[in-house]
Amino acid sequence: MQDRIYTADAEPGDDATVAGWVHEIRDLGGIAFLILRDNSGKIQVKFEKDDMDEELVETGLGVSRESVVKVTGAVEEEPRAPTGVEITPEEVEVVAPADPELPLDPSGKVDAELSTRLDNRTLDLRKEEVQAVFEIRAEILRAVREQFRAFDCTEINTPKIVATGTEGGTELFPITYFGEEAFMNQSPQLFKQLIAGSNVERVFEIGPIFRAEEHNTPRHLNEATSIDFEGAFCDQNDAMDVVEGVVTAAYEAIQENCSDELEALGLEDEFEVPDEAFPRLSYEEAIERINATGELDEQLVWGDDLPTEGEKALGDDVGGHYFITDWPSEIKPFYIKDHDDDEQLSTGFDLMHPRMELVSGGQREHRYEKLIEGFEQQGLDPDQFEYYTKMFKYGMPPHAGFGLGGERLVMTILGLDNIREAVLFPRDRQRLSP
Amino acid sequence: MQDRIYTADAEPGDDATVAGWVHEIRDLGGIAFLILRDNSGKIQVKFEKDDMDEELVETGLGVSRESVVKVTGAVEEEPRAPTGVEITPEEVEVVAPADPELPLDPSGKVDAELSTRLDNRTLDLRKEEVQAVFEIRAEILRAVREQFRAFDCTEINTPKIVATGTEGGTELFPITYFGEEAFMNQSPQLFKQLIAGSNVERVFEIGPIFRAEEHNTPRHLNEATSIDFEGAFCDQNDAMDVVEGVVTAAYEAIQENCSDELEALGLEDEFEVPDEAFPRLSYEEAIERINATGELDEQLVWGDDLPTEGEKALGDDVGGHYFITDWPSEIKPFYIKDHDDDEQLSTGFDLMHPRMELVSGGQREHRYEKLIEGFEQQGLDPDQFEYYTKMFKYGMPPHAGFGLGGERLVMTILGLDNIREAVLFPRDRQRLSP
Repeated sequence: MQDRIYTADAEPGDDATVAGWVHEIRDLGGIAFLILRDNSGKIQVKFEKDDMDEELVETGLGVSRESVVKVTGAVEEEPRAPTGVEITPEEVEVVAPADPELPLDPSGKVDAELSTRLDNRTLDLRKEEVQAVFEIRAEILRAVREQFRAFDCTEINTPKIVATGTEGGTELFPITYFGEEAFMNQSPQLFKQLIAGSNVERVFEIGPIFRAEEHNTPRHLNEATSIDFEGAFCDQNDAMDVVEGVVTAAYEAIQENCSDELEALGLEDEFEVPDEAFPRLSYEEAIERINATGELDEQLVWGDDLPTEGEKALGDDVGGHYFITDWPSEIKPFYIKDHDDDEQLSTGFDLMHPRMELVSGGQREHRYEKLIEGFEQQGLDPDQFEYYTKMFKYGMPPHAGFGLGGERLVMTILGLDNIREAVLFPRDRQRLSP
Repeated sequence: MQDRIYTADAEPGDDATVAGWVHEIRDLGGIAFLILRDNSGKIQVKFEKDDMDEELVETGLGVSRESVVKVTGAVEEEPRAPTGVEITPEEVEVVAPADPELPLDPSGKVDAELSTRLDNRTLDLRKEEVQAVFEIRAEILRAVREQFRAFDCTEINTPKIVATGTEGGTELFPITYFGEEAFMNQSPQLFKQLIAGSNVERVFEIGPIFRAEEHNTPRHLNEATSIDFEGAFCDQNDAMDVVEGVVTAAYEAIQENCSDELEALGLEDEFEVPDEAFPRLSYEEAIERINATGELDEQLVWGDDLPTEGEKALGDDVGGHYFITDWPSEIKPFYIKDHDDDEQLSTGFDLMHPRMELVSGGQREHRYEKLIEGFEQQGLDPDQFEYYTKMFKYGMPPHAGFGLGGERLVMTILGLDNIREAVLFPRDRQRLSP
């Protein structure tokens, strides 16, 4: 690739050509500064009005903020400059002028509503702290994939256009597929199981999932990124070990590789890698502990799903990530296996962050007859899922897995208020573009 | 995770418990062998009928092929066994019996039609050579991401549910999105450009794309994996450098890390990493060279798109990957920039493998007015794309990028006949499940 000097790489003593966005112009009278910004940081461009070519000064100081300019000149040390160096321009080219009326101020001096930010993501992402979120998001995905490979997993891609939903016909977006009815997949669940039943054995996928949920809350998206694992010859405890491994790997990678980003977010002091194994509470213990907090108006009884306030009370009580295991079978979907010695008790588990649920997983039902029964109990027609169930007749090993919400992981790690801050272009009931 | 002994790890002298699929049973009379297979390979289980517990023998030799069994016993050296060791069972447990009537023979002794294979992917993926394709596919994606990061790119995820297609309303799958019309995205093109225009500058995405093309050929899919790059302050030559980098990195990673898989595919001798830069032919040179081959009935003239036979003739002539650059502007989409000194000539390029096109890319039109003109020339209503075009008013730097077909990359690297062999669950006009 052609050589390019980033603003942060311009070294005193050199002549440099740097290109970037006009971050700010500070006019002090006889002297004025243009602060040029690119991916690497900022550099100060000095204009001494009386000593410089008039046209050059006019071009450099007349340009509107957020325009793209290219500056060539000598780089000198200047301790008072934000980065310790400044450039005295010999040439200034306006590569792409910006409309002076910006819908959003990337210098961050004026706060913007989230919807304005999302409508103008290009400008929004010119803010250091917004960019930092997405640099960290990318690092999380890198670290998670590396950790999956350390667990001997193979990356897979499963289809997003499907004939049936994972859990039946609700919450699905319908598609017209060459005249046939189809859906956007709400989870790779059934497909990853089909692969775990082959020689590949352990698989992971990071990809989009689509849910036509009516919720419009700060923690729901209609298109999200799911981080999925499935492993043959694994049980729910193995799957929890993998959860713990990948979530911890994400934190560790941020600590190791994202100190600038943490600083941009003001998190350099409070960021902490979880340093202990995540406690594994049974559902029964969980409701007991929730009841003991006294935070709920009504005591929970065995069989209840956990209300949001209950999760919150328990999260405050535990103070970090924790698993809830051994859920009542009724609450969990058909593909989750029950305990062999107690059919009322499933092997399903959730990983909770004090703020919200991150993961849902469990050992899967691998026995053909039991699987068919499960479909029927859930009111689903097993014939519609024959493409899936028939493979269970040909030696389907015991297997377990989970799905981890990618945006929820980013959101909880960085303490973001709204899950939409963890996605470049969120999709919700109101938002379909950009 | 719980300890597990893989068949390939069972060491002579140990007592081991191995679990896997019954690959084959060979009964020689007084002695019989069960070949057990898992992700790591195969192990021989020896039954000496007269010296062993009758029930054990019955269980071990009565089990149907592809059943999942667990065998515990002493591991001994046995030079005549396929892997040099064998296990004498003390315990055999049938974990998941398989229906003796298999729709597909994973031992590969009976050839199966592609459609039978795709209907029974779990069984199909128990074949070593099929598994090898997907292990290599995963390694390609890993290597490509690593190379993108070496080019300072940030991984992004862009939405798959969109309000408008990239290139207008054709070839789009319509979705009902909370009562509104929406589409499944045919390319991350517009979204990755919006991010390249921010401080993030260089981005890549590997994700699904959806095309409602009527083609049903061995090299088209209706849902495919696109490998996308976009870089600010890059031109078409930079983008070609990135193409060359990632494609070469994929080959190198396979050579370095996938020797077993290449062997399983019988490619260990013929596999070669491209060792020269990919030649960059202009469109004009390309048509001249095609005409010179004499393979076409009619000579091509400037402005013609290249017919498949023309690409084939040129591919045979060049003998390896090559770029075609400087296409007539008319053939390329609106977002490709024209050369400043010749508006008839675009900066668009394709990367060709002798068998087919792999990549389409170019420098992008970053000037607002020109972009709007381009929409109009292509018969598209720029107002519909306002979410995209408006960001070009606020300092959009020159930028370039490309899209690389993931399955085509796998297919050409491994010499697969049909692109469906490079996807776990392909989607085409006829196939919607599994």
